[in-house]
Amino acid sequence: MNEDNFKAELAKVANKVENSLKVALNDQDQSTLELIEGMRLASLDGGKRIRPFLVHASSALFSSDPQLVEATALAIECIHCYSLVHDDLPSMDNDELRRGRPTVWKAKGEATAVLTGDALQALAFELISANATPANALIKAQLVNELAKAAGKTGMVAGQIRDLAAEQATDPASFADVIQIHAQKTGALIAFASQAGAIIGGADHHARAALNLYGEKLGLAFQLKDDLLDVVGTATDLGKTPGKDEASGKATLVSALGIEKAHTFLENLHDGALYALEPFGERAEMLRQMARFVCKRQN
Amino acid sequence: MNEDNFKAELAKVANKVENSLKVALNDQDQSTLELIEGMRLASLDGGKRIRPFLVHASSALFSSDPQLVEATALAIECIHCYSLVHDDLPSMDNDELRRGRPTVWKAKGEATAVLTGDALQALAFELISANATPANALIKAQLVNELAKAAGKTGMVAGQIRDLAAEQATDPASFADVIQIHAQKTGALIAFASQAGAIIGGADHHARAALNLYGEKLGLAFQLKDDLLDVVGTATDLGKTPGKDEASGKATLVSALGIEKAHTFLENLHDGALYALEPFGERAEMLRQMARFVCKRQN
Repeated sequence: MNEDNFKAELAKVANKVENSLKVALNDQDQSTLELIEGMRLASLDGGKRIRPFLVHASSALFSSDPQLVEATALAIECIHCYSLVHDDLPSMDNDELRRGRPTVWKAKGEATAVLTGDALQALAFELISANATPANALIKAQLVNELAKAAGKTGMVAGQIRDLAAEQATDPASFADVIQIHAQKTGALIAFASQAGAIIGGADHHARAALNLYGEKLGLAFQLKDDLLDVVGTATDLGKTPGKDEASGKATLVSALGIEKAHTFLENLHDGALYALEPFGERAEMLRQMARFVCKRQN
Repeated sequence: MNEDNFKAELAKVANKVENSLKVALNDQDQSTLELIEGMRLASLDGGKRIRPFLVHASSALFSSDPQLVEATALAIECIHCYSLVHDDLPSMDNDELRRGRPTVWKAKGEATAVLTGDALQALAFELISANATPANALIKAQLVNELAKAAGKTGMVAGQIRDLAAEQATDPASFADVIQIHAQKTGALIAFASQAGAIIGGADHHARAALNLYGEKLGLAFQLKDDLLDVVGTATDLGKTPGKDEASGKATLVSALGIEKAHTFLENLHDGALYALEPFGERAEMLRQMARFVCKRQN
């Protein structure tokens, strides 16, 4: 397993997600076309598909039903994409561009953007629960439950409300606050994606706890690297304007730590993610490469 | 079974929903209090709880696990409440009052209102999938799947996007268009609630189809009665300003039919709902009373 293999696998998963989303969003009804177009804009041709990759890579550690793996990967990506659509709204981050394209509210209007996010969230749970059989229903119900918790008031949405509160507060957010915001806002979904394989494969709670720990470290590393890139990256590499966090007075790990300590912390998180994978030995190489990729990427 | 029994049962279910929502929204974390308060404002002390009642009443026709009935009733109510929060947003219906209280965006700001709705949707799927066992997991997965479809791009959200399009169109919406909007926007969730008992009880597809038909008629009757009350009701009875639909140029069944034909259509829907219940004989009396209640209510 080298970096080329990893990148090929990442591209393969991204391609699979893209095709599956196209199928899931193939509705032809003219009267709801605005909604479907919004959902396509929000989800197609998007991002690195890190969360679906984590589902696939963690599932490869166990004996897993491919249909369940695929549905779970897709469902998590739908939740992620819906959160971006709502985050971009004028009342939230007020972003007009994402991945070099107009955001959904900018392209389709605010009302359609709200509904696009709502429908993507419902689609996530529709996909993950589809084709239930006596053999897979218990796992499906568990996946739905864990995804809902990772997405909702104790996970992603909780992180988002804390982030908004931190932005409006007069005092700068403490290091501990920022850690907690990221742990919920982006970490919960990444941690769920990382342990999804253990749930799908019916692995014991040790395996699940190890993958959860890996996901927590990875999620925080991902956010920290994002913050670092915002400070030191170039617009060409990023496909967006750097320095936006600082300009908006947003509390980030880098503003709380300073650049040098932030780099050290990133190394620690990388080490922590690798440490969590030790029980899986060689088989977890794909997840190790992902940790490396997240910490070393330039965009 | 008389009207008093029905009203007592409706109050009993409403009370149960209220208590269960309080438990589900009992989070004490100060840092996410804004979110939890938004969710409480959106869901507590609210409405007639018609959808939960339908879950309970349809479940009473079969042998049903009470925990599943309760979770499903609660989940549907969470979806309904989230949809109201998002519908009220300035970019949607721009409503400042609901049930005589400030709407969530008015009380808490737009960003919190968006997140409140998002978290309520996730909570619905969290509740319905909780405590899965080998014995109930298949039904839980089916309930999740049907609820997601009723809520998402082929159900409630689809109806909402069509409604927005109809409002923005220069030509008034046709009768068929308005029917289709209501069938998705409010009908899909009511139809799901009505057939939930058949899913929970593992009934055959005839029973499910009959209850679905009942739900479709009831959902449309509910909307038509709402529209009629908006035209002929008083502010005291309604707890909101009547005449709002007409003032906003909103396409309603009443504007498409005229008041007299609308009354006849309501009678037809009532008859259709009762007809759908015939296979269940006396046992469906509670659902019959609900149809009567929906069509005769003054608020």
